[in-house]
Amino acid sequence: MDNSPVVAQVDTSLNYTQKDGLIVQFSAGEAAPTPLVFNSQTQNSMSSEADFDSRMMQRCLELARRALGRTSPNPLVGAVVVKDGEIVGEGFHPRAGEPHAEVFALRAAGVGARGATVYVNLEPCNHYGRTPPCSEGLIEADVAKVVVGMVDPNPLVAGGGIARLRAAGVEVLVGVENEACQQLNEAFVHRILYKKPFGILKYAMTLDGKIATTAGHSAWVTNQAARSEVHQLRAACDAIIVGGNTVRQDNPFLTSHQVGAHNPLRVVMSRQLNLPENARLWDTQEAPTLVLTEVGANPDLQKMLLKHGVEVVELPALTPEQAMSHLYERGFCSVLWECGGNLAASAIAQGAVQKVMAFIAPKIIGGSHAPTPVGDLGLTTMTEALPLERVRWRVVGSDCLVEGYLPQ
Amino acid sequence: MDNSPVVAQVDTSLNYTQKDGLIVQFSAGEAAPTPLVFNSQTQNSMSSEADFDSRMMQRCLELARRALGRTSPNPLVGAVVVKDGEIVGEGFHPRAGEPHAEVFALRAAGVGARGATVYVNLEPCNHYGRTPPCSEGLIEADVAKVVVGMVDPNPLVAGGGIARLRAAGVEVLVGVENEACQQLNEAFVHRILYKKPFGILKYAMTLDGKIATTAGHSAWVTNQAARSEVHQLRAACDAIIVGGNTVRQDNPFLTSHQVGAHNPLRVVMSRQLNLPENARLWDTQEAPTLVLTEVGANPDLQKMLLKHGVEVVELPALTPEQAMSHLYERGFCSVLWECGGNLAASAIAQGAVQKVMAFIAPKIIGGSHAPTPVGDLGLTTMTEALPLERVRWRVVGSDCLVEGYLPQ
Repeated sequence: MDNSPVVAQVDTSLNYTQKDGLIVQFSAGEAAPTPLVFNSQTQNSMSSEADFDSRMMQRCLELARRALGRTSPNPLVGAVVVKDGEIVGEGFHPRAGEPHAEVFALRAAGVGARGATVYVNLEPCNHYGRTPPCSEGLIEADVAKVVVGMVDPNPLVAGGGIARLRAAGVEVLVGVENEACQQLNEAFVHRILYKKPFGILKYAMTLDGKIATTAGHSAWVTNQAARSEVHQLRAACDAIIVGGNTVRQDNPFLTSHQVGAHNPLRVVMSRQLNLPENARLWDTQEAPTLVLTEVGANPDLQKMLLKHGVEVVELPALTPEQAMSHLYERGFCSVLWECGGNLAASAIAQGAVQKVMAFIAPKIIGGSHAPTPVGDLGLTTMTEALPLERVRWRVVGSDCLVEGYLPQ
Repeated sequence: MDNSPVVAQVDTSLNYTQKDGLIVQFSAGEAAPTPLVFNSQTQNSMSSEADFDSRMMQRCLELARRALGRTSPNPLVGAVVVKDGEIVGEGFHPRAGEPHAEVFALRAAGVGARGATVYVNLEPCNHYGRTPPCSEGLIEADVAKVVVGMVDPNPLVAGGGIARLRAAGVEVLVGVENEACQQLNEAFVHRILYKKPFGILKYAMTLDGKIATTAGHSAWVTNQAARSEVHQLRAACDAIIVGGNTVRQDNPFLTSHQVGAHNPLRVVMSRQLNLPENARLWDTQEAPTLVLTEVGANPDLQKMLLKHGVEVVELPALTPEQAMSHLYERGFCSVLWECGGNLAASAIAQGAVQKVMAFIAPKIIGGSHAPTPVGDLGLTTMTEALPLERVRWRVVGSDCLVEGYLPQ
C-alpha cells in the first residue's frame, strides 16, 4: 500500500531487486552513487593520486585473496611494486612457512624495485620468524616509498615495520583502503588481539524464521546463488563446526564444492558421541574431519572414526569456548558455526561468535515448533536483544544475506 | 570473508546501507540506474512525450494517495487536466459517495478543459452509480484526449469507458505507468476480481526469526522508522485484524498515530471472548473497534464491550475466511493481519493473505520456544514452502522490509 511519491519511485526500479550484485541505496531525486571507476583525466591531481593508491591497494587485496583459507595463522597479504605508474611486480603470501607477499613482489620486480613504490595491505613485518623481516628486504631493494593498508594489529609490534622503514629513509603512507584491509583480515586481527579464532555464525532461514520444517527437513532453504556464496565462505574459513544433531538430521558434506578451492577442517562437537556409523563427514578423502568429544565417550565409535581417518580429540569439558581454544592452538583464524539453534546459542553466550551471516529466503514454511536459528539465550524482554553492528543487507540471487557483528 | 573484487566494492558503499530510501542494485562497473528525473531538453521528442505522460500519471497517483484508506469500496483515483503542456486542473476521489476524480479535475479546469488532455490512473467509469458516468462528463467537457493508467479490473465492464470515449471521437491512450497504477489499487482490484478483501500479513521479527521473547515480550522488535512505516500502512488499510492472544499479550493501540490520518477499523477475532475487561482497543474515541466472535460467546463481556462503543458481531463459525467475508460485505478492500503466528497460519491456509510484509530487525533474541511469525501450515519438507513472488527488499532505517505476494 504505497502512500508517497518515494515509494512510487521504488516501483520503477523493481527490475533491480532480484539480480546478483550490490545493494546501494539512495533517496529519491538524489543522484545515484557512482561505482568505483577511475578516470584520472576528470580528476584533479590530488584525488587522482589518491585514486591510484586506492586502486593499487585494491589490487593487493585481490592478490591476497588468492590464498583465502590457506594462510592461517598468518594473514592474507598481497603486494604490488609500481614504477613510473606501471606495475612491475606483484605477489601474495600463499601459506604459512612460505615467503611473504613483499618478497614475491620484489622478486618479480627485480632491479625495477629500485626507487619504486611498494603497496601492501598489511604493515611489513620487522622480525625474524620463519622468514627474514620484510622491512629489511624493502630497504635492501632500495624502494622509495611504501604504501601500507593497515598497521600490524599486534599491539606489541604495531608500527615497528613502518618505523624501521622511515628510519632507513623510505617514505611511508599508511591507511589507504584501511577499512577494506581490516575487513579482509578481520579473523587474523581477532586472533591476534583476543587469542581466539574469529567465530562466524552462518544460517539460512525462511522469511518466517525457520531453519527447517517441524519434521526437521531443511534441504534447501535458499537458492543456488546463496548456496554458492556459502561454499565460497567455507573456502575462506579454517574450520566449520556442527553439532551431533546436524550430522544426524542433515548428514552434510560441509565442503566448499569447488575444484581447487580450500576445504576447511570439518568439526563435529558431540559430548556423548552418539553419532551415526555412516555419515558423509566420515569420508575424509576430500576434506579432513575432527570430532571433538569428552574424555572416554563411546570408545567403539571412536575406533570406527579413527579407522576412517577421522581425528578424535577428547576434551575435559566440551563447550564452544573449549572448542575454540583447541582450534586456536591449531593456529586457526576463522571458524564457521553452521550448527543448529541450541549449539548456536551456547556459542553466542560463550563469546565464540563475532559475526552473524544470515541468509533469508523469501518463502513461508510455517511451524510453531519448527527449529529456529538461535536457541535460548535467557533473554526475557525484547530490549535485551543483541543488536548487530555494521549491518549489511545484500540481495544474493533471490535471497538476502544479512551480515553484522555482535557487540564485543 | 570477502573473496572477490565485486564484494570489495560493496565495502566502499557501506555508508549507503543504513539510510532510508530506495534499494537499488547494480553490478560492479555497471552504471547506476538514473532516478526519475525528467528533462525534455535532453530527450528526443518521442521519449520526451512518453516522459511527460509518465510524469502526469505519477501526479495522478500522488493525488489519488491523498485519500488513502478512505475510498473503499471505491478505488484510489487522481486526475490531471493538461492544456498546452500546463496543468489546468487537478482532482482526486475523496471517498465513496463523493464525485469521482475526473469531475473535480474538470471543474477546476473549467473552460480550459476544452481540447485538453486528461490523465487519470483508472479507466473512467461508464455507468450510473451514485454519480453520473465520467465518460459522459469528459465528452461533454469536449476534451481532446484521455490518458488512462489501467483499465477497469472488473471483467464485465473493462474497456467500456474507453470504448465510449473513442466512439465519441476522443483519443485514448491506455497503460501509462500501468504497473504503478495496478499496485496502488491492488486491494481494489483483488476485491473486484475475487469478491474478497485483499489480505496483507505484516509482522516484525528479529534476525533469528522471533516476534517476541520466550516470555512473550515484543516491544519493540523494530526501530522508529519501521514503526512509522507500519503506521502509514495502517492509514492505508480499511481494517486490522488481531487475535485474542495479541490483545492479552501486547494490549496494542493499532492506530495510525498520525494527526489527520485515517484509522482503520480494529478487528479482534476471539472465539470464546476470553478477553480482558480493560484494553486499549476498547477505547473507541480515536478509532472504532469490532470484535468478531461466535454465537452466544461470553454475554457479560459482550455487554461490557457494547457499553464502550465496541461493535460485536457473532458469526456462526469464526474463521479467517468468514471474517474476510464479513469485511467484504462491509465494503472493505484491504485488511491488515497484525496477528500472532497461529492466526497468521490459519489466515494463510484459508487464502485470506495475498501479500506478506515482513520487517526484519538485525538483532538476536534467541529462544527455542519463542514465538515465530507463522504457526503450523502442515508442511513437512522444505520444498513445500510457499515462495513469495515479486519480492522487494528495502532497508527502512536500521531494519529491512521484505514485501512479496503469496502464490494465488
